[in-house]
Amino acid sequence: MLRNLDKYDVVLASGSPRRRELLAGLGVRFRVEVRDDIEEVVPKGMLAMQVAEHLSRLKAQAYRPDGNQLIITADTIVIGPHGEVMGKPHDEADARAMLQMLSGATHSVVTGVTVHTAQRLQSFSAQTQVEFDTLSDEEIDYYIENYRPMDKAGAYGIQEWIGYIGVRGIQGSFYNVMGLPVQRLYTLLKTF
Amino acid sequence: MLRNLDKYDVVLASGSPRRRELLAGLGVRFRVEVRDDIEEVVPKGMLAMQVAEHLSRLKAQAYRPDGNQLIITADTIVIGPHGEVMGKPHDEADARAMLQMLSGATHSVVTGVTVHTAQRLQSFSAQTQVEFDTLSDEEIDYYIENYRPMDKAGAYGIQEWIGYIGVRGIQGSFYNVMGLPVQRLYTLLKTF
Repeated sequence: MLRNLDKYDVVLASGSPRRRELLAGLGVRFRVEVRDDIEEVVPKGMLAMQVAEHLSRLKAQAYRPDGNQLIITADTIVIGPHGEVMGKPHDEADARAMLQMLSGATHSVVTGVTVHTAQRLQSFSAQTQVEFDTLSDEEIDYYIENYRPMDKAGAYGIQEWIGYIGVRGIQGSFYNVMGLPVQRLYTLLKTF
Repeated sequence: MLRNLDKYDVVLASGSPRRRELLAGLGVRFRVEVRDDIEEVVPKGMLAMQVAEHLSRLKAQAYRPDGNQLIITADTIVIGPHGEVMGKPHDEADARAMLQMLSGATHSVVTGVTVHTAQRLQSFSAQTQVEFDTLSDEEIDYYIENYRPMDKAGAYGIQEWIGYIGVRGIQGSFYNVMGLPVQRLYTLLKTF
């Protein structure tokens, strides 16, 4: 499947081990190349829903794909129950505050994805709603201590213990919450 | 967490490696004990929605938990787009027919769970809707050949390649589709 990609040097421009795993799950052969000199600037007044796709595009534009390169970038943000954009927590106290906000409520996870070749730049974003049961302080502290979710938007990984015990249900793509909407990406990659 | 279970000898009565993984993900210590002499009889006229919980209860009743045993049983069925109950496929042709039915449509996955101790028998079921994109014959054949989904209700595992490339989205618990609604089970286990 996706034999059309054989002609490309596919590059995943993300340091996330989850994204690596998810892209590998599509059966795509790729290498990882991460640049850390990209300034993630969000224009004033941009809607929360548009931020992730915008950031994935910014990252993609920082690469100049040559003849046969195909670059994949992604960005995931959490939009809290009251519309606040949540990135990665700064420290433990920040992680705790984020999880307290998500507890007993429904939030959105938006992942923006951009695919960039010498000929084309195409992007989309996918949204998933996630409903958390009420989390006790003990559960939140246990999670932060044992899983150190400092590298995760919204301070949680749905594939970790907190997702097992805390997530009542979702609406949309599960893998999108993990950081890459693989089904939509597969559909897009077919067209390259 | 779930320290209340320390007083029990927890037994998962299921041969499914996915269920084993999922229960372990809750941080529960347990052993596996599978009996294969249970006759899975569904009363005539039973609603499709009730079958999984009924079967999990049948399985649980086959065990007679002694003083400190806590038995967990589960059963997962797929209810196809037209209401047909789908168990595990009999052969490749049956798997192919099931996936063709699920292609481009929404179906339900219902897992029934029973927890049984000497004092209590408690059961529930959870339902998740799964929306598949249209699957090509090539994709269906590739999946069956490479993943041999003969041990899975509805002939697919959402955590496998077919779930990555084919599932547009779900409504409900992802882990329920894998075979164990861990969040609801966690909530129930807290009360033992």
